[in-house]
Amino acid sequence: MITLYTWSTPNGRKIPIMLEECGLPYTVVPVNIGNNEQFAPNFLKVSPNNKIPAIVDDEAEGGPLSVFESGAILTYLAEKTGRFLAPSGPARYKALEWLHWQIGGLGPMLGQLGFFAVRSDEKAPLAIKRFTDEADRLLRVMNKRLGEGPYLAGADYSIADIACYAWTLAATSFLKEPLKDTLGSVPNVHAWLERVGERPAVKKGMEVPKT
Amino acid sequence: MITLYTWSTPNGRKIPIMLEECGLPYTVVPVNIGNNEQFAPNFLKVSPNNKIPAIVDDEAEGGPLSVFESGAILTYLAEKTGRFLAPSGPARYKALEWLHWQIGGLGPMLGQLGFFAVRSDEKAPLAIKRFTDEADRLLRVMNKRLGEGPYLAGADYSIADIACYAWTLAATSFLKEPLKDTLGSVPNVHAWLERVGERPAVKKGMEVPKT
Repeated sequence: MITLYTWSTPNGRKIPIMLEECGLPYTVVPVNIGNNEQFAPNFLKVSPNNKIPAIVDDEAEGGPLSVFESGAILTYLAEKTGRFLAPSGPARYKALEWLHWQIGGLGPMLGQLGFFAVRSDEKAPLAIKRFTDEADRLLRVMNKRLGEGPYLAGADYSIADIACYAWTLAATSFLKEPLKDTLGSVPNVHAWLERVGERPAVKKGMEVPKT
Repeated sequence: MITLYTWSTPNGRKIPIMLEECGLPYTVVPVNIGNNEQFAPNFLKVSPNNKIPAIVDDEAEGGPLSVFESGAILTYLAEKTGRFLAPSGPARYKALEWLHWQIGGLGPMLGQLGFFAVRSDEKAPLAIKRFTDEADRLLRVMNKRLGEGPYLAGADYSIADIACYAWTLAATSFLKEPLKDTLGSVPNVHAWLERVGERPAVKKGMEVPKT
């Protein structure tokens, strides 16, 4: 059985979506980051960076295995099941390119935009402009890419789409105000959000954890 | 032959280090981001996100393959050569955890700290504090991890160390001033920097491209 430590954030939602897509059974341990539960000593053993999501797979090859960092967990689950990431060849590296693009770009930049433009009471115009510009750029790069094929890696749905989905959805709701000029100019992104959002596993995963 | 598009930045240095470690022949195409060369149409074909590093491998399985995003390139080269990333089991996922930790955390946070605290003429105290605090936290997480073994994935040097090296070195030089309180408190990080920095491939890779 897999134990999933997570919370209702874009990074937290990636893993229940993947587990649902793969049909793997799992138990959820909610880690309420609003109450600083990510700093509990027991959680630190699983996630030395004090961040959700993390998993423990009791049935891993060679004994129980903990994995933290959403991109590493997605790769682990894809390799465990042989799903949503080609084992070799161009399709594999196109998926890993766009997975890393989300992990290093889309996620951190939308995350900082959320802090500076929405969550923080104090306003730093330089930071708001910097992260609005970068989020705008990234969503246009994504829009261009999604004009070339239905999914980020090309023809097939992959862990790159799973990684990007909840963050991109946050851009259309939580970040709607700072990104209003952008959101009218990325039709391929909206069509992809609909395509991915219709998947039963995505619908189920987006409701984990129940809060 | 592999063509490497890169520049003299922490992300740009990861790939020549890996190519040198693997003993793979490569040609360097410098992309001077100070002159906006990353926006040239020819480069966009290789790197749709307009960022260095990127590679084209003319001898990839199934024909020439371009790969962008430093984390994806490191994984590609590791899987091509069977070096610096275990093919399965816990050692593989420990390396991928810390690779993703660099891609999604250490890199973006030190990058933003560099912009707000060093490169920008306008100063935004809220942003400087936010990224100084996060860089401090990350370097202490790294220090704790490096107290458990010589390398980030444990006993063996891996692509996680290659990914973190140039960024961590930047913290001790370019970011020395905002991080002065932190740098006195992370002895395991300093010892690791020395251990990794002594490798001949790291020394060679850190000099690519010649500028």
